[in-house]
Parts: sequence; C-alpha cells; structure tokens
Amino acid sequence: MYTVADYLLDRLKELGIDEIFGVPGDYNLQFLDHVTAREDLEWIGNANELNAAYMADGYARTKGISAFVTTFGVGELSAVNGLAGSFAENVPVIEIVGSPTTAVQASKKLVHHTLGDGDFLRFEKMHEEVTAGIAHLTANNALTEIDRVLLIAITEKRPVYINLPIDIATITVSKPQSKLNSQAEQLTAVEAAILTKVEQALQQAQCPVVIAGHEILSYHIEQQLDAFIQKFNLPITTLPLGKSAFNEDDAHYLGTYTGSTTDEPLKSRVDTADLVLLLGVKLTDSATSGFSFGFTDQQVISIGSTEVLFYGEQQEKVQLDRFVSALATLSFSRFTGEIIPVKRTENLVITDENLTQKQFWKMVEEFLISGDTIIGEQGTSFFGLTNVPLKKAVNFIGQPLWGSIGYTFPSALGSQLANKASRHLLFIGDGSLQLTVQELGTAIREKLAPIVFVINNNGYTVEREIHGATEQYNDIPMWDYQKLPFVFGGTEQTVATYKVFTELELDEVMKTARNDTERMQWIEVVMDQEDAPELLKKLGKIFAKQNA
Amino acid sequence: MYTVADYLLDRLKELGIDEIFGVPGDYNLQFLDHVTAREDLEWIGNANELNAAYMADGYARTKGISAFVTTFGVGELSAVNGLAGSFAENVPVIEIVGSPTTAVQASKKLVHHTLGDGDFLRFEKMHEEVTAGIAHLTANNALTEIDRVLLIAITEKRPVYINLPIDIATITVSKPQSKLNSQAEQLTAVEAAILTKVEQALQQAQCPVVIAGHEILSYHIEQQLDAFIQKFNLPITTLPLGKSAFNEDDAHYLGTYTGSTTDEPLKSRVDTADLVLLLGVKLTDSATSGFSFGFTDQQVISIGSTEVLFYGEQQEKVQLDRFVSALATLSFSRFTGEIIPVKRTENLVITDENLTQKQFWKMVEEFLISGDTIIGEQGTSFFGLTNVPLKKAVNFIGQPLWGSIGYTFPSALGSQLANKASRHLLFIGDGSLQLTVQELGTAIREKLAPIVFVINNNGYTVEREIHGATEQYNDIPMWDYQKLPFVFGGTEQTVATYKVFTELELDEVMKTARNDTERMQWIEVVMDQEDAPELLKKLGKIFAKQNA
Repeated sequence: MYTVADYLLDRLKELGIDEIFGVPGDYNLQFLDHVTAREDLEWIGNANELNAAYMADGYARTKGISAFVTTFGVGELSAVNGLAGSFAENVPVIEIVGSPTTAVQASKKLVHHTLGDGDFLRFEKMHEEVTAGIAHLTANNALTEIDRVLLIAITEKRPVYINLPIDIATITVSKPQSKLNSQAEQLTAVEAAILTKVEQALQQAQCPVVIAGHEILSYHIEQQLDAFIQKFNLPITTLPLGKSAFNEDDAHYLGTYTGSTTDEPLKSRVDTADLVLLLGVKLTDSATSGFSFGFTDQQVISIGSTEVLFYGEQQEKVQLDRFVSALATLSFSRFTGEIIPVKRTENLVITDENLTQKQFWKMVEEFLISGDTIIGEQGTSFFGLTNVPLKKAVNFIGQPLWGSIGYTFPSALGSQLANKASRHLLFIGDGSLQLTVQELGTAIREKLAPIVFVINNNGYTVEREIHGATEQYNDIPMWDYQKLPFVFGGTEQTVATYKVFTELELDEVMKTARNDTERMQWIEVVMDQEDAPELLKKLGKIFAKQNA
Repeated sequence: MYTVADYLLDRLKELGIDEIFGVPGDYNLQFLDHVTAREDLEWIGNANELNAAYMADGYARTKGISAFVTTFGVGELSAVNGLAGSFAENVPVIEIVGSPTTAVQASKKLVHHTLGDGDFLRFEKMHEEVTAGIAHLTANNALTEIDRVLLIAITEKRPVYINLPIDIATITVSKPQSKLNSQAEQLTAVEAAILTKVEQALQQAQCPVVIAGHEILSYHIEQQLDAFIQKFNLPITTLPLGKSAFNEDDAHYLGTYTGSTTDEPLKSRVDTADLVLLLGVKLTDSATSGFSFGFTDQQVISIGSTEVLFYGEQQEKVQLDRFVSALATLSFSRFTGEIIPVKRTENLVITDENLTQKQFWKMVEEFLISGDTIIGEQGTSFFGLTNVPLKKAVNFIGQPLWGSIGYTFPSALGSQLANKASRHLLFIGDGSLQLTVQELGTAIREKLAPIVFVINNNGYTVEREIHGATEQYNDIPMWDYQKLPFVFGGTEQTVATYKVFTELELDEVMKTARNDTERMQWIEVVMDQEDAPELLKKLGKIFAKQNA
C-alpha cells in the first residue's frame, strides 16, 4: 500500500533530505510510522518544537533543504518563531503538521490542541504570514498540493507549511510519475534584458564593486558567483548577512562591509565605487550598522530574489540562481584596477593574560581551517566573527536579520548532521544558550562532535551594549557549564569539557580540541561582562539611537 | 515624568500583579527600566519566551491575572503557543510586546526582528487568532487602548496583546483618573430571564446534577458556586478540565466525571440525571473520554462564558461570574435525594515492591494535605491525578484542552510565585520536562520550594498508549535527573534530590519532602515505560480510534 505519506517522503528524498526532525504528537504518529519504516530516512526526535525548527533551518542552510514534523496547534505554534526566521533569511524548510482527521475537523469537534471553538484553520492562517506557501491536504488535492508547495520552497528558498490530516496520510495513491518540475535553465526575456543592462553598466564602470548577500547562500550559488568574479577580476565584499557567500581567502575578497563601521580602505572603496552591484543582498540595520552605508541609489544595481533595482528604480523580478549563473556568460572588459584583499592577523602573540574579546577573535581567526563550518550566535559571537577573515571553503551560519537568540545551538547541530565531514565550530554566549540548551541531549544521542565555545560573560552582553549595562534584566542565572553536557546524557566517551580564562589556556585547549575529532568539545570561555567586540560596541550605540 | 510605561504598570498593579515575567530585547529595554525602577513590582527574567508565557499562565491561574514582556517578532512568536493555551483555557494573561519606534515602523525600515519586508503588522495580525484583544499603542490612543484591552482580559478571562513601540513607552501622560471600570454587579434583563429559567428547571428536577468546569476557576468563583451547592444541597461533579472547581472533600462532591470511563455509581448518576446543569464547562474530547458522556442535549442546561444552551438551543450570552454569584439567590426546593460522595483510598498498604502507576497515585492521594496546589502535566500525570480525590482548599492546575507538553513546569513555578504560602506539587514526566527544563535556573534563583515529582518512564508514555508503543519516535534521550538541578545553579542549600523505585522508598521520601519546606524537592520516580494510569489506557484506545 503506497500512501500519501509515502509520496510526500519520496518527494523529500528526491530533494535530498536524509533526516527528518520533529516532536511526536498523537496527530502525527501514523505519519511518523512511515518515516521510521524507511531505511533511507532517519527520524531525529527533538526536545521541543522550536529547537526542531532551528535544527531544520541549520540543516537546510547546509544541505539545501530540510523538513520537520510537529503536531497540530501546540507543536506548530511552538515552532513558528523558527519558521519565521527561515522565512526572513530565505531558508527552505518544510514543516509538516499532523492534524486531526478530516472528519473531526469537518464536524468542528472540541478536541485537544484546539482553542475549543471548533475552528481548525486558525493556526494555518497564522502561518500565512511567515511562509511562502500553505498546503492543506485533502483526498483530492494531496499530491498536487504537495508538489506545488515543494516547488515554491525550492524556487523561492523559503519555508512552506503542509497541513496533513492524519487520515489523509494513510490513503492509497500512486507513486510520482516524474521528477518535480524544476525551473528552466534558460533565462526569460525579462531576465535577458536585465542581464544586458547589467553588462552595459559593468562595461562602463571604472571602479565597480560587488557586494554578495545571504541569498547567494540560500541558493547555494557560491560557485556561480565565483566564476563571475574570477572571469572579470572583480573586487567583492560581503555583508555580515551573507558572510561566506564568497571565498574569503581569495585575492578578490576585500573583507566584510558593515556600513559606517567598516575599516578602511574597504569603506571608501565601496562607498566611492561608481557601480555597486548587490547580488542577493538585503541592506538591513544590523548588516549595515543602522543603514549607514556610504553609497546612494545612484551607484547601485541590486539583483535579489524578491526585488531588482536599478539606481533606485524597481524592475521586474528575476530567478536569482538562474540569473547569477548567467553572469559568467557576459562579455565586458576585465577589471584592471587595484584590489586590496582583506587584512589578516599575523604573528599573534599569546600571553598568560585573561582573555579579552579583541584577542579571542584573533585567536579564533588563527584556529580556523579550510572546510570548517562556523556558526555565530547573534550577540558578541556574531559581531566578533563578522570581521574574522575566513579560510577557503569555510561556511558561515548566522541569523543577523531575524536575530532570534538561542537559534544557533540547534542550528549548528542540524548543520553538523547535514555535513558530518565538516567540523562545526559554534560560538554562543551564556545568555543565548539558555533558550535552547536541552538540545544537548539530541547532540549526544546523535554522537555529534562540534566544537562549542560557550562564552560565559554573565548575561546578555549584546543588550548591555544597547541599553541597561548593569540592569538586573540583563543578568541571567549562573549555570554550571562544565557539568551541563553530562546531565543531558554525555559521558567522557562523547564529550570533552574545558574552562579557560587566559590566552594560554585557550591556546592549549584549541590544539587539543582540533585533534579530538570523535567527541563534542565543550569549551567555556570566561570573559568580562562588559567587554565586547569593537563592532558591537559601535553598533550598540547606533541601535540605542534607533530605539530613541 | 509620568509615562505611558508608568500608566500601564500602575494599571497592572491595580489589577493585582506584583511580578512581571519575560525576556529582555532591545525593543523593550526602555520599558523594563520602568519595571525595575519600581519597588512594588518584581522583574522575573525567564530563560526563554515560551517559558515566560507558561509561567505567566500559571501565575494568572492562581493570582487572577498576569503579565509578561517580550520583544518584537522573535520574542512574541516564541511565546505564542503559551498565549494560545491561555486563550483555549480562559486564562487572563497580558503580553506586552516591545516594538520598534513609531518612526521606524512608519518608514518600513529593514530592521532586525522583522521579515525584512517592511511589514510591521504581521505578528500582531497572527495574534488576533489567539487573543481576545489587540492594542497597538500610539501617542493618541495609548491610555484608552490600554484600558480597553485590560477590561477585556478581566471580563473575558482571556489573554490580550499590547504592542508597545519603544518611543511610545516613554511619552509623558497623566495618571489614571479613576479605577478601571469593572462590570456592574446587577444582572442584565437577559441574564435575569435566563436565571428564572434555570430556577424553574431546578424546581422541576427530581434528580439534578451539577457539573462544574474550568471557567469556574478562570473567574475564581469557587466560593459563589459553593454557596449555591450548599444552599440547595445539590450533588456536584467536575470534569478533568475544571478539577478543583469545587471542594473535593465536601459531602456534595461525587468525584470526577470523565464520560464513559467514569466509575460507577457516578457514571449512572450523571447520565440518568433529569437535569444536568453545566457551569463553565466545555465538553472536550480529553475531558469526556472522546465525547462519550451518557447524557443528551435534552437533559442539559449549560451556562458558560461564551455560550448558553438550554436543551441544545443557544441563548443570549451572560457574564459568567455575575450569573454564578446570583445562583445562590434562587428559590427552589432543596434536593433531598441520596448523594454518594467520591470514594477515597483507605488503609493503603505500602510494600517494598517496585512502584506501579496504580499504587503511585494512591500514595499521592494520601500525601496531599489541605492548602496544597497540585499541577499535573498532560500525560500519565494528568490522567493519574484525574481520579485522585483532593483535600479541602487544594487547587489543581492542568491543561487538558490545549495540552501543550512541557507547560506545567514553568506554570507550576509561576503559580508557586503567585502563592508562596501554598506548597506546590508538580507531577511531570521525563518526556515533558525536556521541553522547558531550563526554567530550573529561574526556580533556583527565585528560591522556590515546590515538590517536583519527575516520572522517569523513559519517553512519551502518553503517546505510546495512543500509538507506536515501542516505536523509536516515542523514545527520548536519557538524562541524569539527579544532577539536573545542580547544573542550573542549585546547591544543597536550595534543592534536595531523590530517586525512588519502590513504594517504601517513595513513602520515606514523601515524609522527608513534606517537612523540608525551604528547599525545592526534586523526586525522580522510576516507573515502567508501558505502565500507565487506568484512565489513560482507556483514553489511549479512544484517541487512537478518533485518529483513524
């Protein structure tokens, strides 16, 4: 018996999904039977639904797409903040919500996990605000609706929501007759016309610069972008929202552009460019130090997944991945001006002084190796990492637009699961870890071995920088971070823990951790509660002004 | 300078709020300054926003009302499942969402915690589905909108949502000129007419029964209900959704009615009554074993906060608290039939056998004392407690309609904070504890001393009873429950931990825990993963059928 559940799972496999996240609930158990029955899919049970959504987000950022399962009402609403983050930052996550049977819903019964008013569509309606597509499966539409929203997810790189009444999961259907229709490779006439205009602009530009954004990562078109840059010898920078969209070890890479807080000469180079070509970029407040970029509309061509702008004027939309792929087919003169690549830390001296934020991020820079995946929690970690130049083939995950604290811990685990060959390095503060800490149990059960730097600076330092430096509301309870992994199922076989105060201690532990590849490395880094990366200090003042 | 923030906080104080829950974020920090500046309000920082919502829900159930603060987007969406539970089960919780300044919102800037599309109303719109009122404060409407939604909260006993742009919080206003208008005590003409019809029905009934529901608890009208029952000598039962709405130690109390699974003679007594008077009741699936009550519309008068039904016919609405208060003013003949009160466990023998669910709940029955507050997590705990007859003045908290697992841990802490004089006894399974465990840090920081029974039965037993008894998806990682409180800041001065396997061990620990009133008692109770309370076993089969 081949069922709707099997059809949906076959489609997910076709898209490259090997693991499915989530939390069981009585409205999804029959569906889960079909997951666990398969040899080619693994069920990853999470400690709660928000963590499942975060973990699925991290998995999708690395693997290209992901899926998680929740139950109706309680489960989906617990997860909705995670899904909203995936929407904001263009991550294709598929949420499958197991709901009461069609008959129960039609009869408006007062069943559990409802508001007791017989209205079964409220939660689905709420999800319209934070997803790119909603499918409410019925006996008649199940297969076409599944295909429709999965296509949206892979085309728009945004989350979709599938409401699966538990009786629909088990009705008999036919297997897919063909692959999911993916998009044509050929440019549309509109896209071709826009491409020609880009070509003309580049031909005319004396001093162009490319800024790559997060949508390059969403569409996994880093290589296509690289081909374009190499062919035309163009200087390129990224925003923090989009870090690692271009190989930071490449000679064309100028560093991370953050608006007014950018170091020279990068700042002037970007601000005075006669053409600023934005590819998959959103100029958000946290990515540009409060919109303080020094260029104006008159310098900018912006090609994004939802918007195309030429010198401030909106154009018709393009399909971003197809369009960026076509950039390397253009014909214009190679750039011949000077390109000053990002400055790297050299000859770093390690002392027995207590760690400062400034020294810590330099040591992190030296610690990175090609192939790592770096995850920076929105706080001191993200802003500390922003100006750390990465090595070749290092992927970076952050969430600076949505900025939901606690996100990175499950996200790092999801990404590590998606690519076990890449050592994952998570940087997270004590304030953020609080929100999602229980996923340690999942990490240990799945034998994941990331290196986790827990920055213990006694509370919400990012908030202190903005407002209320010594206020009680920025304090958090002091946990025992050294013992934490062990109460969640860790043993000496699965986790190594360290606590460091000084540069020398960190240096030692970094060497040990790098070589201890089979166990999770849990490194508590003690730093002062009022110390912060330079960028965050500046940004804190800017955000305080924005909130006044 | 007296500001909108001060006005709002004065109103909250007026309603009886002494503690405010939440998580800081840069869009609410200025508002929090006004909270921490007050001597008469305490800020209780939570580990995450969903936990804050749950904790506020528990506080409101005990204290009558509560408030919590989140930040825009990420915070409010993390909390929304908690607020939905408050809506489903009629709990008046006020959420205050700190949002970007009016100017930032008006200019549609791409700031953090938005979806990056300039739309600042999406999340507010989502909340329309799960709250009874939304206020979006402006310089012009702030005071009237605050008053309007607070009145909704106290009148309808449901959550409301206040969107507070951070610049509005600090604008200067006048203090409240008068108390919030509470409702008139006098019945409306409609209510008086309905009351007369109730009186006539009671006068004619030979064999009436009253069923009290959860709305009696929402409106805190247990005493008014009691006055009615005593005056007319009426037999009364409660649903599980409404347990403790009536003193279970009173001679008029028949036990808990659960539909077809109810023990005799209660089942027949209710099903054959010639008048079933429902007060504040919702006949939900989990409260009635899948709608298996034995009475029909023709026997029922139902007076609820959102609906009044006479023999299946809908009437105009009444204000529930005013109406129930008026019941004691009726005039009809006292009931003179036999009333068989609920059967209690007697002469319980304690052996050295391993604990079973059956024996455990009998021991819990004997353990309770007057004045306790009991919280039962939706799972083996809730269904085990359903048929435990309570003592006098024991309050019970559960969430059987919304049924969000993990809810009870923060909720119990919130309720304990609302009433420190009442010893709180929480019963929660290992599967549920996973979701919200980090609030242990808050419990320890606040020096709360509830007795927590952690039922370690290796996973989601409630789901196993419904479907997939031995399936992997009902397993959870095994944590070290004995050490758990200590990593979250607990010490031997603040927490006592125990682990029990046998009846004798539990008996010993119960005695010790009862007398150790200054520390949290953390009692891990090991039971078999396939053992479950009798009621849950029956209900599991009923729910499996409902999902087929």
